[in-house]
Amino acid sequence: MRTEFKTKRKIEFADTDMAGIVHFTKFFVFMETAEHEFLRSLGTSVVTEWEGNKIGWPRVTASCEYLHPLRFEDEVDIRLWVSNKGAKSLTYQFHFTLDGVDVARGELTTVCCIANPGEKLQAIPIPDFLAAKISI
Amino acid sequence: MRTEFKTKRKIEFADTDMAGIVHFTKFFVFMETAEHEFLRSLGTSVVTEWEGNKIGWPRVTASCEYLHPLRFEDEVDIRLWVSNKGAKSLTYQFHFTLDGVDVARGELTTVCCIANPGEKLQAIPIPDFLAAKISI
Amino acid sequence: MRTEFKTKRKIEFADTDMAGIVHFTKFFVFMETAEHEFLRSLGTSVVTEWEGNKIGWPRVTASCEYLHPLRFEDEVDIRLWVSNKGAKSLTYQFHFTLDGVDVARGELTTVCCIANPGEKLQAIPIPDFLAAKISI
Amino acid sequence: MRTEFKTKRKIEFADTDMAGIVHFTKFFVFMETAEHEFLRSLGTSVVTEWEGNKIGWPRVTASCEYLHPLRFEDEVDIRLWVSNKGAKSLTYQFHFTLDGVDVARGELTTVCCIANPGEKLQAIPIPDFLAAKISI
Repeated sequence: MRTEFKTKRKIEFADTDMAGIVHFTKFFVFMETAEHEFLRSLGTSVVTEWEGNKIGWPRVTASCEYLHPLRFEDEVDIRLWVSNKGAKSLTYQFHFTLDGVDVARGELTTVCCIANPGEKLQAIPIPDFLAAKISI
Repeated sequence: MRTEFKTKRKIEFADTDMAGIVHFTKFFVFMETAEHEFLRSLGTSVVTEWEGNKIGWPRVTASCEYLHPLRFEDEVDIRLWVSNKGAKSLTYQFHFTLDGVDVARGELTTVCCIANPGEKLQAIPIPDFLAAKISI
Repeated sequence: MRTEFKTKRKIEFADTDMAGIVHFTKFFVFMETAEHEFLRSLGTSVVTEWEGNKIGWPRVTASCEYLHPLRFEDEVDIRLWVSNKGAKSLTYQFHFTLDGVDVARGELTTVCCIANPGEKLQAIPIPDFLAAKISI
Repeated sequence: MRTEFKTKRKIEFADTDMAGIVHFTKFFVFMETAEHEFLRSLGTSVVTEWEGNKIGWPRVTASCEYLHPLRFEDEVDIRLWVSNKGAKSLTYQFHFTLDGVDVARGELTTVCCIANPGEKLQAIPIPDFLAAKISI
């Protein structure tokens, strides 16, 4: 069964813009934070060590489709799942809803990398302990 | 000939994250600001009045592909053009380069709307004075 | 007895900068969001209507003293209290701690205003229903 | 004669909030970026190396007084000077004006530190080459 993760987010004043709604760039922050909560729910973190190396997940693509505005104090539901599990990459889908109304749909593709300070990023296979926990 | 617009942006400390590079969400801010400079270069603004109504350009989709990191104090070149001019919408392409190296490619689709305070957004045909200035 | 309010905040990746710590400007976002949670805990909101007018609380001063850095995934404790209740203004104190260690101390002074769209801001006495709930 | 530095900043859409004005936290970003432009004007950077060590300038206090709102597309004038030059610290004053009208006054105090990755920050005397360029 597909691995899914659900979270909520309360819209803050600093998320809004002069149009009176959440600025479109903030949805990408919301996606990233949901991704990190998901990784923690699997017992790891987006910034971690593994076999003596620092592991990171740089983004290679990000996209969002906007369907309905969000406003200050809205509490948006965010549903996340992994739609593609490559040898070295994960693609996440994000579905934002407000009281059941579709608000936005987003996607992030990230690559598992050795990210030691001062070294060039190097893509590596997703460690088994993590890959085993993700079903698509 | 295709309408193009070029601008530059100096990376600020607040644009960076703990990975030491520009946070991926900032590219969307950079795209939006370039879009607004472009509209000003055509003699209008993203927030304007026209025939007694307030006009706005809500985003319907946004995407970015990340090719190379940006760092503090980098001065990135941004090239923008309109790849699709619909009756009521514009799709922008953004090409980010640093000293000639491809950094990112982005896309924004925006819809021309009457955006009077307290009223529902209403998509309208792009005013002629503006549409006439954009070639694809 | 002095009115106090406590909340927590989990540090997100987007809160960090290239120094590997939370960017100093984010503490002001954290203060504002804590202020808004406090107002909701009293049954009101920073954006509300009262006697047919929109009420807002523009900031007149903001300050912060930084004692200890915060990092990604830290969960910071925030304690807020009102240190001055003027006829038309409130001054908040914020105390940030991490596992009991002092992280930062902040202050915000805000003024109660009629903030109707298209009108000049007008400072007014804090409505009784709210003033009555705040002890210093 | 007192060392001064002047810069300008064009307000972007993402700087605004639902009150239709620049969010109060953005003034701290504007101060920091002006500080960094100032340091570059003196031939250095807020992130630099000196005698084999990385030098950084963590903030110890930040404050701002808000006098007049800024709006989208405003071009604000920022004047900066050093009001205190300690052995190891600098205090900056910032004066924001819009077409001659006072907008805000801010202050930042920063400490010169060795900031090598993985080491504890260590306050050090401001290097002579820099201290010699700053008059108060």
